[in-house]
Amino acid sequence: MDGQKNNCPFCSPVVEKATFAESNNFRAVYNIAPILPGHCLIIPKNHLSSLLDIPTTDMTEMMLFSRKIIRVLSKAFGTSSYDWTIQEGQPAGQTIEHLHIHIIPRTADDLPEPGDWHPRLEASEPRLIDSFLRSKYSYAELKSIVEKLSRIFIDQGA
Amino acid sequence: MDGQKNNCPFCSPVVEKATFAESNNFRAVYNIAPILPGHCLIIPKNHLSSLLDIPTTDMTEMMLFSRKIIRVLSKAFGTSSYDWTIQEGQPAGQTIEHLHIHIIPRTADDLPEPGDWHPRLEASEPRLIDSFLRSKYSYAELKSIVEKLSRIFIDQGA
Repeated sequence: MDGQKNNCPFCSPVVEKATFAESNNFRAVYNIAPILPGHCLIIPKNHLSSLLDIPTTDMTEMMLFSRKIIRVLSKAFGTSSYDWTIQEGQPAGQTIEHLHIHIIPRTADDLPEPGDWHPRLEASEPRLIDSFLRSKYSYAELKSIVEKLSRIFIDQGA
Repeated sequence: MDGQKNNCPFCSPVVEKATFAESNNFRAVYNIAPILPGHCLIIPKNHLSSLLDIPTTDMTEMMLFSRKIIRVLSKAFGTSSYDWTIQEGQPAGQTIEHLHIHIIPRTADDLPEPGDWHPRLEASEPRLIDSFLRSKYSYAELKSIVEKLSRIFIDQGA
């Protein structure tokens, strides 16, 4: 609950550039290393590592904000299907110790097998750290998608 | 919001036998076909297919109840690591159209690769339907684990 942490990719200023929607205590970030189009992250603005650390009073905000983001992604990517997942702790594959909910829009036959998203997620986590800290992504492309999603978020009266 | 649905595994009476904790509108069910020890499901008592269908006022309850269940599983299975996931819609691999949050406790080296849980989840979903509707599971074993988890839930002052 005490703000930001040095060297945390999700506390770095780069995150603001990837942010397309905000609530009081959370932000929706377009994934700099998406495993599928529309792959986003919901993260607390403060450096909190676990779902158990989120203040009780913020849980509703987190969930209602997540649902708004699901609606934004549904509109932007033309699907109502998605994977929604949290990996907590190293044994579960968490690499960045700042809570992040992955929301990944899914469409029919987007991957050879429906379950292929998860190995990709695992593989992408180290890239995620690297990308957020070293800014390897094309900002023009990021800006374009962030602006598009932001407009949808605003239009839906969020 | 109108109760139960015929032929839904999560609306069948078998679910009560696998339930180890309840809140007003949700239940925690030990998975009849667990992919790892402790693999549980949080489901709404009413037949609701999507996270977007959960009444706003119930979202807090769902999350706070989920966190209690995470604490129960942490105690029962000696870990604070877990995967927490929802698959919405067929393209994401949802096979039972009744919202279910998977909570899977994880421990170091429990699977050859951390990401192996997801292909197992995909493979287990059809088994899940089969198991809940046809009662192939050993009820003695199920009863034992359900009672153990239920005691922890009650002990923690839930």
